[in-house]
Amino acid sequence: MSVPWAEHYARLPWATPMGPYDLEVRLAVARGSCASAAAIFRDRYGGAENVQSLSLLGDEGQRSHWRGVMHLSTRRFAYRFRVEDEAGNACWFGADGLAATRGETSWFQYPYVGDGDLHAIPAWAVGAVFYQIFPDRFCNGDPSTDLPGTLPWGAPPTGSSFFGGDLEGIRSQLPYLADLGVQALYLTPIFQANTNHRYDTTDYYRIDPPLGTEENLRQLIDGAHNLGLRVVLDGVFNHCGAGFAPFRDAVAQGRSSPYWEWFRVHGERISLDPPNYETFANRNASMPKLLTHRVGVRRYILDVATYWTRFGIDGWRLDVANEVDHVFWRTFRETVRSVNPDALIIGEVWHDPTAFLDGSEFDTVMAYRWRRAILGFVSGRKNASAFAEEITRIRTVTPPTVEHVMMNILGSHDTERVRTHFGGDAERAMCAAGLQLTLPGMPSIYYGDEIGMEGGPEHPDARRCMEWDVTHQQVAMRERYRALIALRKQYAALSCGDMESVASGHPLVYAFRRTHPEGDILVAANLGEHPWRPREDGPIRRLDEDGDVLPPRSVGLWKVDSLVGSTTDMQR
Amino acid sequence: MSVPWAEHYARLPWATPMGPYDLEVRLAVARGSCASAAAIFRDRYGGAENVQSLSLLGDEGQRSHWRGVMHLSTRRFAYRFRVEDEAGNACWFGADGLAATRGETSWFQYPYVGDGDLHAIPAWAVGAVFYQIFPDRFCNGDPSTDLPGTLPWGAPPTGSSFFGGDLEGIRSQLPYLADLGVQALYLTPIFQANTNHRYDTTDYYRIDPPLGTEENLRQLIDGAHNLGLRVVLDGVFNHCGAGFAPFRDAVAQGRSSPYWEWFRVHGERISLDPPNYETFANRNASMPKLLTHRVGVRRYILDVATYWTRFGIDGWRLDVANEVDHVFWRTFRETVRSVNPDALIIGEVWHDPTAFLDGSEFDTVMAYRWRRAILGFVSGRKNASAFAEEITRIRTVTPPTVEHVMMNILGSHDTERVRTHFGGDAERAMCAAGLQLTLPGMPSIYYGDEIGMEGGPEHPDARRCMEWDVTHQQVAMRERYRALIALRKQYAALSCGDMESVASGHPLVYAFRRTHPEGDILVAANLGEHPWRPREDGPIRRLDEDGDVLPPRSVGLWKVDSLVGSTTDMQR
Repeated sequence: MSVPWAEHYARLPWATPMGPYDLEVRLAVARGSCASAAAIFRDRYGGAENVQSLSLLGDEGQRSHWRGVMHLSTRRFAYRFRVEDEAGNACWFGADGLAATRGETSWFQYPYVGDGDLHAIPAWAVGAVFYQIFPDRFCNGDPSTDLPGTLPWGAPPTGSSFFGGDLEGIRSQLPYLADLGVQALYLTPIFQANTNHRYDTTDYYRIDPPLGTEENLRQLIDGAHNLGLRVVLDGVFNHCGAGFAPFRDAVAQGRSSPYWEWFRVHGERISLDPPNYETFANRNASMPKLLTHRVGVRRYILDVATYWTRFGIDGWRLDVANEVDHVFWRTFRETVRSVNPDALIIGEVWHDPTAFLDGSEFDTVMAYRWRRAILGFVSGRKNASAFAEEITRIRTVTPPTVEHVMMNILGSHDTERVRTHFGGDAERAMCAAGLQLTLPGMPSIYYGDEIGMEGGPEHPDARRCMEWDVTHQQVAMRERYRALIALRKQYAALSCGDMESVASGHPLVYAFRRTHPEGDILVAANLGEHPWRPREDGPIRRLDEDGDVLPPRSVGLWKVDSLVGSTTDMQR
Repeated sequence: MSVPWAEHYARLPWATPMGPYDLEVRLAVARGSCASAAAIFRDRYGGAENVQSLSLLGDEGQRSHWRGVMHLSTRRFAYRFRVEDEAGNACWFGADGLAATRGETSWFQYPYVGDGDLHAIPAWAVGAVFYQIFPDRFCNGDPSTDLPGTLPWGAPPTGSSFFGGDLEGIRSQLPYLADLGVQALYLTPIFQANTNHRYDTTDYYRIDPPLGTEENLRQLIDGAHNLGLRVVLDGVFNHCGAGFAPFRDAVAQGRSSPYWEWFRVHGERISLDPPNYETFANRNASMPKLLTHRVGVRRYILDVATYWTRFGIDGWRLDVANEVDHVFWRTFRETVRSVNPDALIIGEVWHDPTAFLDGSEFDTVMAYRWRRAILGFVSGRKNASAFAEEITRIRTVTPPTVEHVMMNILGSHDTERVRTHFGGDAERAMCAAGLQLTLPGMPSIYYGDEIGMEGGPEHPDARRCMEWDVTHQQVAMRERYRALIALRKQYAALSCGDMESVASGHPLVYAFRRTHPEGDILVAANLGEHPWRPREDGPIRRLDEDGDVLPPRSVGLWKVDSLVGSTTDMQR
């Protein structure tokens, strides 16, 4: 056999319908064993055979990944792969495994691309730039709603401190956000709760009074929409807060409570300390887990989701989404989409998200693994080729449908801030942001990262108050964010172009190309100690800055048509 | 690295919840590279680490497959694998790939086993023996309903011939079926249609008059239930017949028909010859495809399914199930199960069925690939080790949840008959049946196979009239079927025991062990030219026959406690 082993399954993410007639297939083979690969395909019921050559997606670990998109008007795909090594020896790979001849292995079958199974992603979200806000810490627009004991803006946060940030504050800063260029806001929870993070909801129908009222939310949403900004709320449906009325009823009434079956209690009465009921994480008494397979819970949450979706929000970010039944999320999606077909659904899934991304549950997830890869490279812990491998690995465990909406983060309310991760190094933080704003996906900026705020490790310190004093802001950094966001909007290649790694010729320079019919863009991140420039024969100019070289610890962009030579064979 | 590559994904069929606290994991490694393997696991949020050693499921192609079941009371699994080669060199395998040390690779995560996602399979179906009936050809119980032109029973069938078989005929033969020992009937379509196979439904609410009436179906179901037999009907929902009223309306009224959107028409009017609309297979004008993502179609089919499920049937076999949207089947399952929580749902899926078997769609599929493996071995085209590999491959692309309900067939109305496949060799046909009735799954006997009927290739010849003249039946074969079915019922190991391949010591003898706490059973199929017996030191006796040896071209059973030596090291 010309390749020692190969791998494919006719299901996500190995086979993903990209449209009614298009099936993307990925093939993994023993690393480097294969010089070319093609999918031979036809209709399941026979007819002419077609050939789709595959392109190399990348190498990682023991594998080389190839991919291609087959097009068939009948939607019923039968296919086999033909792979060839450097010496031109070919073999076949099908549902029975590898074989020397085509007749020895049978067809893979993707039997039908059903319209109902296509992943409908809101167009507005493709490549959009998000901005994540922790409401208590962004801006205090209405001090009259501050809780007693509210701390002065900017004091060091503790786990229990409140700072008075509110919806009116966010509304008042919409011009700042629009000027930065972000296209959507994701607010961590705003419903009534007992903590500053509000992940312990006590009333899903009420905005927490220190944040304001429904009228404030209305004004925020209207104001955002008028500026072309979307607003996504945080749905905490895996668990509630211990102060949630149904839970309190179950505590008070025991088994006779109609809400008893909403929770998983080990015993005849609920005991809070220690908790004898299932909770978020381990014995977190203040966050009882909701049993989403119970009819009552299901109906309640769907009603809540319907209410706020009708209210006018543009989507949901779902907390601890990976610990809730798939069957529930499918109904959730149907419900939310029936109210607003353009609502975006984002899951919190830190690991391989494929099980949630078949189109029936979430549109995307927060990309924590992507974050780890970026930080590893920009910190210098990994070189460019290790980083390229990690990016390839992430792409191969993610369906291609969601590539341009992956919520790419450098940090969140649950991590240390990006700049702090680099020991305060603003240059490296900007390199990370440069990659975030140029790689495929939906970048999400954690409030204040754009002005170089620090904080961490983790919370509460990563949840400091937004720094509004410009003399304490990294103004140049903010301008750089603004410029890169503007370029994303100007060049389709950056917001929704395909992406391929490019050999940079230097172990600490990672280069990639975003390709699009309107024109390709080359991006490079130079984490080395020396300037770098793409290989060329004449003078070339950068797209994003004056000059032609890429200084150490920076990210740069070039329009590919301005490059004289090939970008796939570049040297320092 | 002690193994060159390894493979696992934290999703079906690699990771499958077997109960609220049990997760079966499978690990593939380069064939033969690994002497032992274990899963190291803990709760996602920390806590004590546990070790679950894995057992070898089998080898196939380039892979060795290991498996094990992890048990965790919190349902939130984080796990890594530790694998060791023959020399005792260990390495780790996690979500970041292979690594020399545990710290270098991260946890796989199966974040939560949700109750709503557990695969609920009706208990009655586990290991049950089915009997498939093609209603026009089984028994004519009421000649008064015969169509004009009905042929004499037993004449050679053509594509268009009718023979007058009906529901009353099936009912009248229930004692025959109960005596044979089968536990469930699967009837190919019985609703009004224009053909003898009735896969072109014209009225989903009406039993085709030549087959009888609702009253006949009532009597058949009641009679079957009284004898402990279940009745599963064939649902043809991928497409309808061209005589279906909504299609006729769309033909007549064009775009103004309320049913226009039920079909995918290329043009302003429906043209039948050639068809300008999507059909089953290629341009099959008589079978217009139903668009199951349309609300009207969806509601119509769900109503039909509700009606007949309420009527009292025990489940559905779904025709061309693989070409219908997953989202539709999920709703279908919810609807049917809400009427009858014990209804079994069987899909027609000839290829890798995992995408349909996550618990939200089908309970099982017709195992055509399994059939091909059996025929390959029993015909002599493949030896025992190639057969063992194929069985392993089938098991590894199927979630373990469904192993004991896989609808194992030797043939169907869509294939040639098993005996005919072997050129009329009844001995080989009985070998195939011996394997069918002893391997894990839900064997389904195609009517008449038990008496050695012939027919084929494919239809119409594989749909001959049932032979009721005992002088033309293979009576010994029927008795053997009866005996093996009785043993399945007597020994839990045969109906629901685990299964492992056993080295037989002979290339044409395939041996396996069914294991169960109530006692293990050894089964062997001897396709060689010489008698075979399990290795033992004293006299042993077969369970199913007199004597102690297994003659050529036969299948035999032994109670393992009657074997003196180990069955895992046997010789001829």
